[in-house]
Amino acid sequence: MPHASPNGGPIGIFDSGVGGLTVFREIARALPHESLIYLGDSARVPYGTKSPQTVVRYSLEAANHLLARGIKMMVVACNTATSAALPALQEKLQIPVIGVIEPGARAAVKQTRGKIGVIATEGTVKSKAYTRAIHALEPYINVIESAAPLFVSLAEEGWANTHVAREVAEIYLEPLIDSGIDTLVLGCTHYPILRPTIEQVVGDQVAIVDSAETTAECVREIVERDYARRAGQAPAATPGVHTFLVTDAEERFRRIAGEFLEQEIERLELVSL
Amino acid sequence: MPHASPNGGPIGIFDSGVGGLTVFREIARALPHESLIYLGDSARVPYGTKSPQTVVRYSLEAANHLLARGIKMMVVACNTATSAALPALQEKLQIPVIGVIEPGARAAVKQTRGKIGVIATEGTVKSKAYTRAIHALEPYINVIESAAPLFVSLAEEGWANTHVAREVAEIYLEPLIDSGIDTLVLGCTHYPILRPTIEQVVGDQVAIVDSAETTAECVREIVERDYARRAGQAPAATPGVHTFLVTDAEERFRRIAGEFLEQEIERLELVSL
Repeated sequence: MPHASPNGGPIGIFDSGVGGLTVFREIARALPHESLIYLGDSARVPYGTKSPQTVVRYSLEAANHLLARGIKMMVVACNTATSAALPALQEKLQIPVIGVIEPGARAAVKQTRGKIGVIATEGTVKSKAYTRAIHALEPYINVIESAAPLFVSLAEEGWANTHVAREVAEIYLEPLIDSGIDTLVLGCTHYPILRPTIEQVVGDQVAIVDSAETTAECVREIVERDYARRAGQAPAATPGVHTFLVTDAEERFRRIAGEFLEQEIERLELVSL
Repeated sequence: MPHASPNGGPIGIFDSGVGGLTVFREIARALPHESLIYLGDSARVPYGTKSPQTVVRYSLEAANHLLARGIKMMVVACNTATSAALPALQEKLQIPVIGVIEPGARAAVKQTRGKIGVIATEGTVKSKAYTRAIHALEPYINVIESAAPLFVSLAEEGWANTHVAREVAEIYLEPLIDSGIDTLVLGCTHYPILRPTIEQVVGDQVAIVDSAETTAECVREIVERDYARRAGQAPAATPGVHTFLVTDAEERFRRIAGEFLEQEIERLELVSL
């Protein structure tokens, strides 16, 4: 077992690649004293087109790796992995495991006047996980889910703010706008990278729910409740340490993550799951 | 060992996903009596952004699987796998192994008046495999390689003939056109799916080399030479059997392959490498 850290161990954040960095960034902002370990399964990205069974297997492998590094909580920062593997992870792991779908659904239900649009990968849309999570909170809300797979490559390739991205966004979003949605959930952790473009297309009559922010809020609540419970154990006053693990192509990750987080990626390791 | 087939075993065709179907189609046209086994590693697609070591490992696993099915020849129908793993495969396997780069380079050298453009994935461009293959044939030819990664997702998502694809093609290809290329190699097996769009952008002053066609030609030569050598062993007169193996998401493959090949995908198996 790794040595106990003053804060009870780092928070593990898992994604198929770089998309979960949007969640990582919000958690780092909300909890600057917590140490974070980010694991991106870049050897097997993307998960969005893979079968649920395969995604469950990959997610359990990632969880085992993070557990061996002494995490106190696991955040599944990938919608596809959340929709396919969250129940299996919650069953197997003895620590809190939170996904990105439930926080996104809760935030959308709070915002909406009755009609929610969800854009996500093919895998997430097929799972109907957002519709289920929203209807569990409020059964009468109208939910329309739609796949927007090209957003992932546009984000990955650095084309988020181009005319091409704008045109793709119009093609994906116009049917949702026409159907009268008042709230749009960015149901893939890559999509916040395209948020300015998406906002231009949907206009200010549609509220945007970014599950990165709402998930970080949820993580903060759990961490603070935990400190309150273990009275006297205040969080360390020093800044948390950020460690990054990838399963392939670490230089590519260093570049993309460095640009996105606007920080030097110092602790980066290549691991095998 | 599997039982001997009249033609000496099927031809194995390997790709990271669906892109190699462009090569499969040309081989099936050139050699209608040969049985073909196509293996798409859909659980780990795409290879284009992965490290060479990882691509070598995946390619050797694929080769072992195909060998166990008695193939007489292996075609690496993926530029990234060819550039990273062809030497390792040729060293390990006791059967002919052909990639897509050498045939493409040869066809380009035949066509060009002196300046060749190559578009490919990030991995292939970084490897400089096309420049090396072209210079091995003709050292004084000017070669410009350029990555066009979004073409893969546009092809995979069925956006090949859209206005968006046209705009992306203009952004990728204009620097090559401006630099005066007279020949353009489609250095990724996905790209022939976008060929009409690419042709519109480059115009008729630039010759297009599609490595699917030239690779099929190369496979036909080897097969016919083999029959000539084993005198009396003529190819079977019955149509070859086409078998498809994927490592994930077989229904997605069935749909995309069926549309692309314009045939029902009857023999489709999910395998684990």
